[in-house]
Amino acid sequence: MEKIDFTDQYFMQQALKQAKEALDKDEVPVGAVVVSEGTIIAKAHNMTETLNDVTAHAEMLAITAAAEQLGSKYLPNCTLYVTLEPCTMCAGAINWAQIGRIVFGAEDEKRGFQRLNPSPLHPKTSITSGILKEDCMALLKQFFAAKR
Amino acid sequence: MEKIDFTDQYFMQQALKQAKEALDKDEVPVGAVVVSEGTIIAKAHNMTETLNDVTAHAEMLAITAAAEQLGSKYLPNCTLYVTLEPCTMCAGAINWAQIGRIVFGAEDEKRGFQRLNPSPLHPKTSITSGILKEDCMALLKQFFAAKR
Repeated sequence: MEKIDFTDQYFMQQALKQAKEALDKDEVPVGAVVVSEGTIIAKAHNMTETLNDVTAHAEMLAITAAAEQLGSKYLPNCTLYVTLEPCTMCAGAINWAQIGRIVFGAEDEKRGFQRLNPSPLHPKTSITSGILKEDCMALLKQFFAAKR
Repeated sequence: MEKIDFTDQYFMQQALKQAKEALDKDEVPVGAVVVSEGTIIAKAHNMTETLNDVTAHAEMLAITAAAEQLGSKYLPNCTLYVTLEPCTMCAGAINWAQIGRIVFGAEDEKRGFQRLNPSPLHPKTSITSGILKEDCMALLKQFFAAKR
């Protein structure tokens, strides 16, 4: 039987809670949490509509909050959990912040960083994908179906 | 004789003023202004040290401020002037904001968006480079020489 990493699932559940909060505010439902030494030090969801600001993605807000919390703008010992594959902008920020590991749920074939060459992430950044991806995607589908 | 676009030079001078302010604060000297209908609606310089935040690049702060000023998070009729070629993160933000035109001074071979494939900018975004590039580069060289 495949070994399940309950830790990653737990933290992705917390990111999903953030995404649901975004959905409740009619924001594109993407949520993120930053974990340091097994503890959530920052959580955020997409706020682009509320703040009228394209830069207010969940990951950007979570990185800013995590740096504030730790008193360091570099986050090499942190893991960023996010419900959707980061976009180019967020991948660039992840790189600048030297985040040690990212874990995302659903893939974003159109806007995700994985389609870029060379990768906008640092080669040392560890990447895990697909954690609770159905739940992550279901929220996005619900949001975009209601917009049509 | 080659025709000189004094307008671009003028606005890049304003971006350079921002970069000099950054230098005075011991920040990496990059400055940016956003122009709408011939008027500067936002100006900013790099604030990553002051704010302890890797996302606080000049372009990011200028985009946030311009959206606030116009009351629209999309900036298709705006031109962003920045002293250094935008990085991956900022190029992603420029794309999300649908900025119509960007003008930059110095190239950034290591971190600049131009090395990425496919381009992180929208195909419709017009790009001008090299405006006052020596002045833009001189500030950066001055900063990094002092750090060694």
